[in-house]
Amino acid sequence: MTMRKDAETIIKAALHAANPDTAVRKALQNLPEVNGKIFLAAIGKAAWQMSATAAECLGERLSEGICITKYGHVMGDIPHVACYEAGHPVMDENSVKASEAAVRMAENLQADDLLVFLVSGGGSALFEVPAIPLAELQDINRQLLSSGADIVEMNTIRKRLSLVKGGKFAGLAAPARVFTVVLSDIIGDPLDMIASGPACADHTTCQEALAIAEKYHLHLSDHALACLQTETPKELGNVETQITGSVRQLCAAAEDTCRTLGYEPHFLTASLNCEAREAGRFLAAIARDHADTDKPLAFICGGETVVHLTGKGLGGRNQELALAAAEGLADLNNVLLFSLGSDGTDGPTDAAGGIVDGTTCHQLLELGCSIPALLADNDSYHALQKCNGLLMTGPTGTNVNDLTVLLIRPE
Amino acid sequence: MTMRKDAETIIKAALHAANPDTAVRKALQNLPEVNGKIFLAAIGKAAWQMSATAAECLGERLSEGICITKYGHVMGDIPHVACYEAGHPVMDENSVKASEAAVRMAENLQADDLLVFLVSGGGSALFEVPAIPLAELQDINRQLLSSGADIVEMNTIRKRLSLVKGGKFAGLAAPARVFTVVLSDIIGDPLDMIASGPACADHTTCQEALAIAEKYHLHLSDHALACLQTETPKELGNVETQITGSVRQLCAAAEDTCRTLGYEPHFLTASLNCEAREAGRFLAAIARDHADTDKPLAFICGGETVVHLTGKGLGGRNQELALAAAEGLADLNNVLLFSLGSDGTDGPTDAAGGIVDGTTCHQLLELGCSIPALLADNDSYHALQKCNGLLMTGPTGTNVNDLTVLLIRPE
Repeated sequence: MTMRKDAETIIKAALHAANPDTAVRKALQNLPEVNGKIFLAAIGKAAWQMSATAAECLGERLSEGICITKYGHVMGDIPHVACYEAGHPVMDENSVKASEAAVRMAENLQADDLLVFLVSGGGSALFEVPAIPLAELQDINRQLLSSGADIVEMNTIRKRLSLVKGGKFAGLAAPARVFTVVLSDIIGDPLDMIASGPACADHTTCQEALAIAEKYHLHLSDHALACLQTETPKELGNVETQITGSVRQLCAAAEDTCRTLGYEPHFLTASLNCEAREAGRFLAAIARDHADTDKPLAFICGGETVVHLTGKGLGGRNQELALAAAEGLADLNNVLLFSLGSDGTDGPTDAAGGIVDGTTCHQLLELGCSIPALLADNDSYHALQKCNGLLMTGPTGTNVNDLTVLLIRPE
Repeated sequence: MTMRKDAETIIKAALHAANPDTAVRKALQNLPEVNGKIFLAAIGKAAWQMSATAAECLGERLSEGICITKYGHVMGDIPHVACYEAGHPVMDENSVKASEAAVRMAENLQADDLLVFLVSGGGSALFEVPAIPLAELQDINRQLLSSGADIVEMNTIRKRLSLVKGGKFAGLAAPARVFTVVLSDIIGDPLDMIASGPACADHTTCQEALAIAEKYHLHLSDHALACLQTETPKELGNVETQITGSVRQLCAAAEDTCRTLGYEPHFLTASLNCEAREAGRFLAAIARDHADTDKPLAFICGGETVVHLTGKGLGGRNQELALAAAEGLADLNNVLLFSLGSDGTDGPTDAAGGIVDGTTCHQLLELGCSIPALLADNDSYHALQKCNGLLMTGPTGTNVNDLTVLLIRPE
């Protein structure tokens, strides 16, 4: 129980450190001089929190704003800001409706106006005016999500099927200036990829887009195929960008808290990008060979693992990582591993991630459940639900990738 | 070039530490009193080296011996010992011919005789008198090798299709005593699994064997199926066993050498058992987030990763791990990663493993080769061959799993 409590302390501290409030406040200190009016657009899973902070900082200087976030993520009214909720990870008609309102606002800006544009992860699904019929775009998105394509590949496609992505939204706002604040959720902070870069010159090419479509055998209409062959803007003169928040901050806060709790922290990586279940197995292997430690140890990873769907179960990459680790941790009574998405949502579930220890595998076996079979069905959610292995945080208001921590105490 | 040289030093030291000579010498100090004659049987990839050392220790006390190893692994004559070479990883007729000679020797032993039985990895293929026609056994072995089954699962099947495995060879030698010296190549040293345990009571069950056959959809004749349903010996009164060598020694030697060379060593695990390419990606992620180090670092892993064949290329798990890592190491000019099998053989190739750095990916791109495509075809050998990335040690005379090391120097 001590380690479970430690895990909760580490999670709380890490999520607090990655909270967008501080980040937005800091970024807005660099706001340029404005002669005209200030407008605001915010997209992504952290859009409400970022908007609320920005509206508080800007006060009466803010003329009008639009905030587009995921269902259940609007936490109240914000002065001068219209808040919309829409579909994520699969976009829906509300995504389009809200995005069209933002487009109208952007198109009406004057040369001396400033658009404060707050971008966080999830923006790809939430902010969209499609260049093809919505139903087809939704279908292509579903194909991408189950293909095993990484987020960089997905966004290379999405930008070309959109009227706002790949720098096109900033183009609509010109000649007004755009002051973009980005809460990074992609490893290495590639600006043109975060939320598919609506205010960022695009570095991907038509050739790459076509190669991705071929690699994952995407089914595309002729119109969609023509869009993939249309080039995106390569330069934008009216945009200034500030990057805030990152998975490194999440890891650093976990590291500090582990140290405070008496664990010797070993930071491994903030850019984990391998298959989720194999990362779990790797960490379990580390646990086995450190279970005889004479001091408390913590191994810390950040990043975003991938899942290749083979089954029809419910789960997410963090839950799958934890479940796979549980098999390798069986019989160790002094270890604990957790993995969670910093946004509080792991896959299409209400859980943030998974938490397992040496008893998890046995608990499941006693219930007649085999971990390999559960993994083959990608059913980590129901597996972990049976053994008190789900982490439930609710929406956290931030979104800076995932945190995975392995704790080991002397026996 | 410094790091490449360091890698060679680490490999040499680790292989030396895991050498069976010292291990066999030490084990034979515990040889029991013998009134009758001493016989010797040795199987596995380290059989010749172990036999040569044992023959030197026993001198004229040794009456007769049989050594069965892999093609190319007999390094010369050994007094009183007949040396055979046979097929590995797929057994052949020479495996059976040599094994039948060992069986004849064992069956003729007297009660006061002692059989020194030297066991090393690879024994499963090299030591075999099949209970079913050889062609069918070879076919089942091929099915197992490409199924993704781990070595524990493979041996559970093999024992039941054999007249010598799963404790049956020691049974044939009774009432003579059997003094077994085991060079462990399986993580955790499960004696009944190493070389399929010819002199070890078997803990696997018919039920498990049938479940494995079902899991991997093995095609079996009725006769083979009947063998799976026949139980193996659960107790052996005439056997004494000494375990020598292990992957932990390999890692410990690497750790010591890294420290001597000025690297701060970080031992991660000696029981790595995840998918080879994902282990490579995990280690590359570690490299990316430590590339800004201000002191030389080494991350050390031992174990045995797995490969699920999807292509028709040539390679081995160590080469595949290294090739996958190369993609994640691209653009880092201060890192190096190598992975090798301690026996000097990685998969069905003449290489021991792979060695890559931040230039590997670019070298391949310039040659028109894409790492994802090469991995999809499991063609790590030809990829690494093109960029000086193959480690060639020749047969090392030992076999204690794999060693993987990531080196990082300050820029």
